[in-house]
Amino acid sequence: MTKEELYKNIKSKKSYLCVGLDSDINKIPKHLLKYKDPVFEFNKRVIDATSDYAIAYKPNLAFYECLGSKGFESLRRTINYIPNNIFKIADAKRGDIGNTSEMYAKTFFETFKFDAVTLSPYMGYDSVKPYLKYKGKWVILLVLTSNEGSNDFQQLNIASNKLYEVVLKKSLEWSDENKMMYVVGANREKDIVNIRRLVPNHFLLIPGIGSQGGSLKNISQLGFSDDCGVLVNSSRNIIYADSSSDFEKKIAIQAKSIKIEMEILLEKNNLL
Amino acid sequence: MTKEELYKNIKSKKSYLCVGLDSDINKIPKHLLKYKDPVFEFNKRVIDATSDYAIAYKPNLAFYECLGSKGFESLRRTINYIPNNIFKIADAKRGDIGNTSEMYAKTFFETFKFDAVTLSPYMGYDSVKPYLKYKGKWVILLVLTSNEGSNDFQQLNIASNKLYEVVLKKSLEWSDENKMMYVVGANREKDIVNIRRLVPNHFLLIPGIGSQGGSLKNISQLGFSDDCGVLVNSSRNIIYADSSSDFEKKIAIQAKSIKIEMEILLEKNNLL
Repeated sequence: MTKEELYKNIKSKKSYLCVGLDSDINKIPKHLLKYKDPVFEFNKRVIDATSDYAIAYKPNLAFYECLGSKGFESLRRTINYIPNNIFKIADAKRGDIGNTSEMYAKTFFETFKFDAVTLSPYMGYDSVKPYLKYKGKWVILLVLTSNEGSNDFQQLNIASNKLYEVVLKKSLEWSDENKMMYVVGANREKDIVNIRRLVPNHFLLIPGIGSQGGSLKNISQLGFSDDCGVLVNSSRNIIYADSSSDFEKKIAIQAKSIKIEMEILLEKNNLL
Repeated sequence: MTKEELYKNIKSKKSYLCVGLDSDINKIPKHLLKYKDPVFEFNKRVIDATSDYAIAYKPNLAFYECLGSKGFESLRRTINYIPNNIFKIADAKRGDIGNTSEMYAKTFFETFKFDAVTLSPYMGYDSVKPYLKYKGKWVILLVLTSNEGSNDFQQLNIASNKLYEVVLKKSLEWSDENKMMYVVGANREKDIVNIRRLVPNHFLLIPGIGSQGGSLKNISQLGFSDDCGVLVNSSRNIIYADSSSDFEKKIAIQAKSIKIEMEILLEKNNLL
């Protein structure tokens, strides 16, 4: 999917919601456990309930891998079930030497048909390069994450820059806003202004509203670019909104209410 | 496995060889493709040929994930096939927020029965913590990798330290030499002296001899601690030593020749 197509979808749905599929077999509604593939049955219902509002889905690989080969089967079914025009992000946070990265790129872009994958920058350019050769596919690089541990290294000073700024600047030598996005936590309001200054045209993937305490309104207004430029993720707040037998209704209501807030913000900022 | 048990195995086998199972279905001997699970059949033969010389096996997750659920099934079979007293390392290089790291820890330590997992430090303490609560299990943190891209960030100066040194020092607040090891590339001869000074008692996992150009002799002599303290990995040089129908023989010879070099180095340094 191109950047233009992504913005077109955002304008058409009036939403920049990414739904995180952190689908934990121990947390999904109990009545689904009777099915052969409960995680897929859950995801299917979540997708049906939210696809009118979601611009992207982001399965979190850990939740599938922990079920072994069955989990990977649920992931495959889930990816195939997501409608074609919705952006599919593998939240995998990989990062390895070149020949291994080639295998991971193959995993996410060929074996599973993801549009994008999240990567950790620690191992540098050759750990990212193999993903960049895929046409129409995206790298989403961790820059400044929402967790407390982000202070351990990401905020350290390297001469007059923070490490996360060095990562951001260096990565601009690797690719551009048509192949690369950045992860920035929703609770990083001060830093996102700085990040937007450094990358005015890149999309940012923003997790951390809801459970992790970020404000949708604040982070959106600070993060918006000329073509929206933000995908805001919500996982637990949407997918575990309810656990009754008709949980889909509550999930749809929850996704719709975020979408309405997004529509208002998009309108107010002349992005529709 | 405890640190003492690991050293006991090293003394008994007179080896500190880790065999990397980067088993690529496109590179394994063609006659194995007739089997239902060619990757497992390959690994089984590699394990049979090398288990007299190997202290550890290190499956590289990318090579299994790229085959989807089938690959995870090959991985499960492989782990179950490795003899009990041999250390099992998941080369996964994960790193995510706490609740996701919990799922990854479950994946590697419960779903698959690994003894250790490689992790990336970029997201800080809470991305590592969930793995540390498992008794007898290990975290192997990326410190200074062997690839060219390691210069992009790991060697940057933070005040009077390199980033990799900051990572090393910070991680000493998280755990000790009984739960944590570090990845240091075999081509980092200068830096390993420095690293050994900072962590005199930790085990180091050292990839990068052979294909990546590191010298076993140099890196061992610089990296040895009082209880050996190094696991040196070889992947491609062993497992793809031959592709004929009796490739196992060549693999065994290759592993044995590395083991003999290791035995001489252990003896010379009074570590047996």
